[in-house]
Order: sequence, then structure tokens, then C-alpha cells
Amino acid sequence: MIRLLINHPSVEITFIHSQSNAGNLVSDVHTDLFGDTDLVFTDQLSDDIDVLFLCVGHGTAKDFLSNNMIKSGIKIIDLSQDFRLYKNGGDDWVYGLPELNRNRIQRANYVANPGCFATSIQLALLPLAAKGLLKNEVHINATTGSTGAGQSLSATSHFSWRNNNMSVYKAFDHQHLNEIKESIAQLQPGFSHPINFIPQRGDFTRGIMAAIYLESDLTEEEARSMYNNYYAECAFTHVSAKNIDLKQVVNTNKCLLHVEKHGNKLFIVSMIDNLLKGASGQAVQNMNLMFGLPESEGLRLKASAF
Amino acid sequence: MIRLLINHPSVEITFIHSQSNAGNLVSDVHTDLFGDTDLVFTDQLSDDIDVLFLCVGHGTAKDFLSNNMIKSGIKIIDLSQDFRLYKNGGDDWVYGLPELNRNRIQRANYVANPGCFATSIQLALLPLAAKGLLKNEVHINATTGSTGAGQSLSATSHFSWRNNNMSVYKAFDHQHLNEIKESIAQLQPGFSHPINFIPQRGDFTRGIMAAIYLESDLTEEEARSMYNNYYAECAFTHVSAKNIDLKQVVNTNKCLLHVEKHGNKLFIVSMIDNLLKGASGQAVQNMNLMFGLPESEGLRLKASAF
Amino acid sequence: MIRLLINHPSVEITFIHSQSNAGNLVSDVHTDLFGDTDLVFTDQLSDDIDVLFLCVGHGTAKDFLSNNMIKSGIKIIDLSQDFRLYKNGGDDWVYGLPELNRNRIQRANYVANPGCFATSIQLALLPLAAKGLLKNEVHINATTGSTGAGQSLSATSHFSWRNNNMSVYKAFDHQHLNEIKESIAQLQPGFSHPINFIPQRGDFTRGIMAAIYLESDLTEEEARSMYNNYYAECAFTHVSAKNIDLKQVVNTNKCLLHVEKHGNKLFIVSMIDNLLKGASGQAVQNMNLMFGLPESEGLRLKASAF
Amino acid sequence: MIRLLINHPSVEITFIHSQSNAGNLVSDVHTDLFGDTDLVFTDQLSDDIDVLFLCVGHGTAKDFLSNNMIKSGIKIIDLSQDFRLYKNGGDDWVYGLPELNRNRIQRANYVANPGCFATSIQLALLPLAAKGLLKNEVHINATTGSTGAGQSLSATSHFSWRNNNMSVYKAFDHQHLNEIKESIAQLQPGFSHPINFIPQRGDFTRGIMAAIYLESDLTEEEARSMYNNYYAECAFTHVSAKNIDLKQVVNTNKCLLHVEKHGNKLFIVSMIDNLLKGASGQAVQNMNLMFGLPESEGLRLKASAF
Repeated sequence: MIRLLINHPSVEITFIHSQSNAGNLVSDVHTDLFGDTDLVFTDQLSDDIDVLFLCVGHGTAKDFLSNNMIKSGIKIIDLSQDFRLYKNGGDDWVYGLPELNRNRIQRANYVANPGCFATSIQLALLPLAAKGLLKNEVHINATTGSTGAGQSLSATSHFSWRNNNMSVYKAFDHQHLNEIKESIAQLQPGFSHPINFIPQRGDFTRGIMAAIYLESDLTEEEARSMYNNYYAECAFTHVSAKNIDLKQVVNTNKCLLHVEKHGNKLFIVSMIDNLLKGASGQAVQNMNLMFGLPESEGLRLKASAF
Repeated sequence: MIRLLINHPSVEITFIHSQSNAGNLVSDVHTDLFGDTDLVFTDQLSDDIDVLFLCVGHGTAKDFLSNNMIKSGIKIIDLSQDFRLYKNGGDDWVYGLPELNRNRIQRANYVANPGCFATSIQLALLPLAAKGLLKNEVHINATTGSTGAGQSLSATSHFSWRNNNMSVYKAFDHQHLNEIKESIAQLQPGFSHPINFIPQRGDFTRGIMAAIYLESDLTEEEARSMYNNYYAECAFTHVSAKNIDLKQVVNTNKCLLHVEKHGNKLFIVSMIDNLLKGASGQAVQNMNLMFGLPESEGLRLKASAF
Repeated sequence: MIRLLINHPSVEITFIHSQSNAGNLVSDVHTDLFGDTDLVFTDQLSDDIDVLFLCVGHGTAKDFLSNNMIKSGIKIIDLSQDFRLYKNGGDDWVYGLPELNRNRIQRANYVANPGCFATSIQLALLPLAAKGLLKNEVHINATTGSTGAGQSLSATSHFSWRNNNMSVYKAFDHQHLNEIKESIAQLQPGFSHPINFIPQRGDFTRGIMAAIYLESDLTEEEARSMYNNYYAECAFTHVSAKNIDLKQVVNTNKCLLHVEKHGNKLFIVSMIDNLLKGASGQAVQNMNLMFGLPESEGLRLKASAF
Repeated sequence: MIRLLINHPSVEITFIHSQSNAGNLVSDVHTDLFGDTDLVFTDQLSDDIDVLFLCVGHGTAKDFLSNNMIKSGIKIIDLSQDFRLYKNGGDDWVYGLPELNRNRIQRANYVANPGCFATSIQLALLPLAAKGLLKNEVHINATTGSTGAGQSLSATSHFSWRNNNMSVYKAFDHQHLNEIKESIAQLQPGFSHPINFIPQRGDFTRGIMAAIYLESDLTEEEARSMYNNYYAECAFTHVSAKNIDLKQVVNTNKCLLHVEKHGNKLFIVSMIDNLLKGASGQAVQNMNLMFGLPESEGLRLKASAF
């Protein structure tokens, strides 16, 4: 988030709050920013801001807002899962997936930024849900990079374990299924079939590849046309007629989709960078929308592909 | 194959045939064997052998056997796909999956060694097929290491492309589906549901992780018990009650399986090393069976896990 | 180069020349640009440009300029090694290392962009040479990512070989030594001691880490102060008081340096992204200087670090 | 160590001691051993053994032996650094580098197993020291895999940090220098020149590549001949006339060396697996020597190279 905001032409960072790092240079903690910024972490909050990005752990965002009165008029973009679901966020919070809620985000004061898996999967399903064409079970296998698990040290983030390794976790039971179901319900209210989701740990740092299929009566041409139409005006989500690979999107805010038909199965591949379109990039995109800025301002990022 | 055979206590390598490398030291081509062997490639064939391993490209094995008369009594183990299917191999060739055809392999003169994806997937499905419990579609997502594509240079094997990358290929259309269907038909003749198979390229060198599910009436306990029973006598295929990861099997001849039940879905994860249990390791296992040697002789390999 | 120029606010790409890809979409070849540009490769040259970037193989640049008359007044930035040495480029070409030749680059019509290893090593030595303090042998060990070897397929760029591997090549004999010696001679004319350079292949895609030492009478404080002074006005080269790692600079145009003293040895670590500060990023930096643009315009790139 | 010993034909594991894992299956902790062993960790020591391998942290080995009386006649192989130096181990302990102390190891009761960096570097220098030909400074740059830092979690072992990254640590000051200096002093007593050692963290899991040079009057042919002679009878250390790469030795107990001459510099590259020849493999090699077993018994390991 900091890396994006310090280069954003319409943004000035007023403060970066941290209890544990208060007084430390930001570039001492995020060392790739050495030479780019002299900002120092603070444990003080200031009212003199237009927007607050909340980048705290799941559960902590709600506590933070309970414990700290944020002045009316300050917009909030929360990157945790605390306000994503209607039952948690209520009418005050808009689910910040621009490809779904663009107009509502533009008018929103509070935006709940979607989860990374949830973003990659929803972008693969929204065009079908918008036409009411989800008619049976959905089958999803998605692999995430190690940054999806955050900075904390754990057995499955140890280099000696993860390098050249692969594994499944939370099969059929990932928490992002709830967000996905709410968004589908918004577009195709009666949908009640299972969404089978196998999350996997990949041995790369950034990115999510989701491989998704379901039964469909559409031809390949019809499906591609429908996807192209749905995303025609979208700044970052594009439909490729050719097969895609993860590094096309790594270190960008893009989502690339590829659609094929095999027998009666419609097959969709979705690629995002979990930290950008799946987190802070999408948060900046939401900020741009909320403040009437060009949607891609500060987000024309160079891919790190060869 | 050479790396396994030079350490196998009951094997003496008579010759290693190669047209392109004839006259070269084996350790000049496979440089990790430097210090281990003085063998030299030859373009001559000898009759003075008990078993011939054919390690040539798909299509070339059939040509080789047409063009070279192999003396009667010499057993053949072919690692290509040329004789795997009944329509290609006929009665002469036994499909070399010990967990399926152990007795037939022990009596066989000619063994067609299974494909790597096919091995990992069949070992996840055999216990169900043996009881006639495949009752609906099967959903398979499997990721392979780069060695699955062989030594030849290609865009998708370039380090700068593949490192930290991921992609799908041959979705719903991988050639190994044919082997898989024949083996299932052998155990559960009437099975006619789709087998949906999404192969993926991983950014590691060795191993296949297959994540598989299907509808089932079995409880998790019943399923695990069934899998444990099916593999109780097997030297290399084991059922783990805990979640598994790929590096548990890398550089070994093992297949590890893990079974879970989620709602009405039975979920099976299968891990093999594509070059060992998925290729040359299984070939040596077949040789051991064909010659009445201990099944795991020469195959007690140290994993390269941490 | 294309990735940088399409986002550069003062640049419009007039044409991208390619014989082999003429007529193809740029985004069909550089697939991470899908959604970002509709540019098509052309085999035609146009005079309607201010600057020409030559991104062809070593040796081919000279041929290209012999065979194609470039209109007077068009500035040229060549990324090959063809004009880097004084004996090759003569008075017409300026060696494009801004930290060495800033003023000359600003006035130049033709700039020879430095090599990647040469950039990382020179930036570690320039402050000493500028004071005439290179007084004995220099010891350099530098490791490069796979992109340093380009896109062509080769045994040492095969993923199955390079993944988790490491090797030395061209020890004591890398062609970049010539550039390095010319730059040192420019600042400290009499220097004649050996420069011992061990290049290494790393198993990552981007970046060069150079570890360098030499005998020095300077204290650590004096050396750091000297380096800080030398680079005080430089947009991209910074001296870190703390230890550094490669990913601090990957996907940026920065060079980070770290200086320590151990006994009588002054030890300098230098980190760059070989494709940016070591190639196209530095070329854009040179363009900015040649046209009086802000030096870092179009080059405030987000690192791909965690 | 366990992975090696369970497959060693002359070894029976009597017990595996652990306070923290007492009662747990070994295969629950080292999960790649699932299916290979039913051993359970114990917090009890037994006297009914021939040899004790001490695999505890540096400093803990000395404490363990102070607190636990080991029955006379039980041989001990310690993998920590506690007894490697003469001043620590005294006459009771033999430094367990077979290429240096083969005869003493055969007669030893207590062996201090060398450090990983120390092994790779010493094997590159012993032939010269044996002839008294170390005549000036030695320059060493060596890169280690992540397993060199053990299993504990740390910032520099986090996958998101280490993947595709590189860094230097403990420049000129690594603790293994002490072992190296003692061994050199044993062969070439008067040597007093600096040994400059830059250790580096690589982004792979296993292996050490050391690139070493020094001034020498030897021709390349003389040097290779001297190295070949020195290691002629050694089971695991080999001199390659061709350039070498790390994966030639990964997952083996081998050390490969390559020698070149450039100007007046003799250049030596040394490759080992830090966990095998650099730790447990060498410990088993020492056991074989101490008990009069064939030196390579249980150590003919399949490389994990392609």
C-alpha cells in the first residue's frame, strides 16, 4: 500500500500508523523503499486526512474503529475481512469490487476491500451470474503465492519447506467462499448450487491462478463474447483469447481471464497478483473511484515478467 | 533410470544405447554421475541381457522394436506410451502399475510403464473402482514439475519464464486420460461418467500433486479404511491420516495419499515424484516384480526434503 | 524497454521495429502487456522520431547503423556493447553511466548504454577511483539472474537445470571488464592493478549482487562518507548504512550500495536489477538526461519485494 | 541423519532422543519418512549402543556430555562445533574430515564433524596446503542454501523474502574460519596470510558453492594433477576437468572440485551438499571409517538432479 501511495500523483501520505514501529523509518521496515521516502511511522492518528486505509489483521479492523473515533467525512477503505459481508458491514459498507459495484463505490464513504482468492474467483464468475447462467455446481482450484499468508513466520512459510513444494489447505472450506456467495447472490439471487473450492499453496511469492469450470449451454464464442462485453469498460480486467500465465499479471493491478469450452464444460482461468488486484492495488483503485480520480491513476505498474 | 540401476544391488548394466552420444562417457552427459561410473554410451545392442529398458520418445519405442529384433527371453520394460493401451499393446504387454496388476506383472515378459499423471491419478481412484464406487463425475486438478516436459528446450521450460510462474495446459484433453479410463474399466467395467482433468505447470522441477474429488456415500472413516486396506501390502503407496505435501515424496518412489470427506464430496490428494514412481522408479519396481526380487530393492531412496 | 516507455509521461512510441515479428501485436509477444497497448511491430523505420533505442544483439547494432541511415538530429541510445569502448565508439558516443558522465550525457547525441555487470561493479568503485584511492587488486564476485542471458533457449536457461542450481562462468574473463577498466582509467588514470572478477549464475530471474573488496586505508566512516558524498545528488544510487539484499532493488531502477571495513579490506556490496539499472531503466534515465526531462520521470517503479 | 541411518545396511537405530518430541512418531516430525519407519522419539537414553550421534545446537553438545555419562566404549560423533577446535576438543576428539584425518578417524573414539562451509573450503585447499603451496592471501566467496540456517523460523528464512533473493552475511567473520585455519596449520604450519571469506545466502535449499582463488606458480596442468593425486583414493571427493554446477552434488555425499588457472591466479570451485558431505553424510562416512565398514556404505545416494 505504501509503495503504491508514495508514487500516486494525487496522494500525499499524512501519516502511517504503527504501534510497534512508531519512530522507525518506513524504509527501515520496508527496505525496498530505501532512497524513496523519509517517512517515519507514528503511533498518533491525525484528523487531517481525506481517506484512511486500514491494513490490520482480520478482526482488528472492527476493534480499531470501535476504539478510535474517525471524524465524519473521512472515507475509509478497509483491507481486512471484517466488513465484507452484508451481515457484518450492513448498509454503511460497500463491497469494493469495482467490476461488480462500480457505481456504489463511487458514492461510498466506507469500502470493504475484497479478499484475494475472492477477487480472482468472482471475476471469473460475474459475467455468468449477471446473466443468470450459473446453473449447476462450480468447480474451483486456485493456487496462491506465499505472500497470501502474510509476513508472519510459520512452518509453511519457511523457505526450506516451501521451495519446490506444493500442498492443499482448507479444501471446500475457505473463508472467502462467503464473499463469493454474497456477490453471486447479488447478481443471480436464486443460485444455490455448491461452490467447490480447493485452495493450494504454490511455491512462488506473488499471484493467484484460479482454474474454474461448470456446466454451460454457451458455446465458446458466446461465452467469450459475454465476458468481453462484461469487462469492456474495465480498466484492469481483460479477456485473453490465448492461454495465459501467472506472470502476465504479477506486480500489476490486472486480472487476466481466459475462457474455453470443453464438451459441456465452460472452463475459465483467472490470474491476479494477490497483493495488488487482490489487496492494495484494488484498494487504490477503489480510492480513485471514491474521489473521482482516473481509475488507473497510480496503478500503471510495470509487470516483473521477463 | 541410470542413477537407479547403478546402485541396484542385483543389477549389472551391460550397455546403455544412444546414437547421439555413442562413445561419450555417461557422466559427461549426466554430470551428477561424475565419480560414480565409467560407463560409456554405445550405439551397439547386445543380446547378453536379461531385461531391456526402453527410454525413448513416444512413438519411437514401437519403431525401435520393429527395427531391432530382441532375442526371445529378454524381458522388456517400455517407458513410452506406445504399448500402454490395450488396443496398442494387446495381450503381449502388461500395464505396469503394480498396485493394479501385480500378479500379471510378475509373470509378464513385456511391461508398459504407466504415465506420470496417470500413476498419480489412478492410485487415488483404484480403491474406489475396485469396489465399484465411482458413481459420478470425477474432478481432477494436477500440477506437474518441469521435468515432466523432458530435457528439450521450449518456451515453457525457460527459467526466466517458468520461475515463479504457473499455467494450465491441455485442459480436459490430456493423453493420460486414456490409460486412466482403461484401468478404471478393468476394475469397474460400466463406469462411463466424465473424468474432468485440468493439468497445470508448476514452478518446481520434480513431482506431481493431484487434487481429486467426486460424490460419494462413504464416510471419511469408511473411505480411509478402504484406502488403507487396498494399499496394506503395497511397498510404496501409503495413506496418510494427516495432510500431505509434495516434498514428502520428491526423490523417492513413494505415492502418498490423503483422504477427506467434505459434505457429499470425497476428496483425495495424491503425491508422487513424476520421474520415479511416475517413470523410472516404477520401471525398476516392475523389474523387481518380474524377476522375483524384493519389490523395494534399489528403491529405498532418500527424500530430498529438508 | 517497451514496458517502461508506454508508461512514460513524456514519451510517445512512434514505432517498434522487428523483422521477425512485423505485423504482430506487441502484446502477443510480450504477453504481460495484454490490455495495456494495441501497438503492432513493424519492419519499417520512420524518421519522425526524436530518439531511437537500439535493442539488438551485440555486433548487430553496428551493422544496423551501417545499413540504415538515421536522420541527423535523431538521438540514439544503444543497449548493445558495440559502442561502449572508446576504441569502438570514438568521440561520437558517450558511455551512458549517469553517475560517471552526467554532463556529457546531457549534451550527447549518441549514448552507449553500459552492461549490467559493468554497471553494478562501477557504481561500487567510482567513489574510490574519483579520489585516486584504488591502490591494489580489486576482488569481485557477482551473481546474475537468468534474464542476463536473454530470451534464447540454452542448457543453462532450462528450468529443470537452473532451478535450485548455481555455477560459475567466464571466471577472470568477462567482457564487461573492458568497460569497467575504461571508466576507472577516466577517473584514476594510472590504475593498473588486476581486477579479479568471478561471474556466477544465480537461480533467480532478475538482479545482480556484486560483492567486492580491496585493500584500503580508509576507515569505515570515511569510506561511507565518501560514498554518500559521491552519490548525494544521484536519483537512483543510494548508500545504505545497513546490510542490503537483492530484492530491495528488483524491478526498480535503483542501485543500492553498502560499505563495510574488515581489517585492511574495504568491502562493498552492490545491488541492481540487471534489466533496469543494468539495461533499459538506465537507457530511459539517459534519455531523460539527454532531453532535459526530470531524471526519474517514468522510472519511479514499484519494487516487487514482499 | 535419520534418513541415512534407516537405510544403512549395517545400522540399527536403537533410540532417537528428543525432549520436545518424546512419544511422537519420527514420521510425524520428519514427514517424508511416512511409510518408512515406525520409530518413536524417546526422552530416555540407552547404553545399549555402539555409537552416539549428537545432533544438537552449538554449545549444547558440551552441556549434554557434561550432564549425561556416556558409557566408556561408546563412540561419539558430534555434529556441533563444540569440539572441532583443538583448544576445545583436545586430544580426545578427532576432527572428522576424512580427506585430512582418515587414519586418525579410523582409530578415534570421539569425532567432531566439520562445519559445512569449512568442509567445502578445506577440500578446495588441502592439496595445496599438503605441499606447502599456500603462499599468499586466499580469496573465498561461498553461497549456501537455506538449510544451512536450520529449521528455526527467521526473517531470512521466510519464503516471501528469500525466494529470488540474495545477500551477504558475516563477511570476513564467519566462525568456520577457525576450523579452516587449524586444518591448514596442520598441513602447512607456517601459513599466516589472510583468508578472506564472503559467505552468501542463496535462494535454494541445499548445497554450497565455493569460488576460491589465490596466487600460484603452478600451471593448470600441475594443479589438476596435484588435486587428482591428493583425492585419488577418496570415495566422495572428485576433481572434474570440466566446469561444474551445484546440482551435480545435491542430495549426495560428494564433493566436486574444478581447477583453472587464470594469469597468476589458481581458481578452484568446490561444490557440496551442506546437509550431507557438509553434515550428516560426512558423519556417516566417519562412522563407517570408525567401525571398519566400507567407506561409502549407506551413502550411495541418488542425486536429485534432473
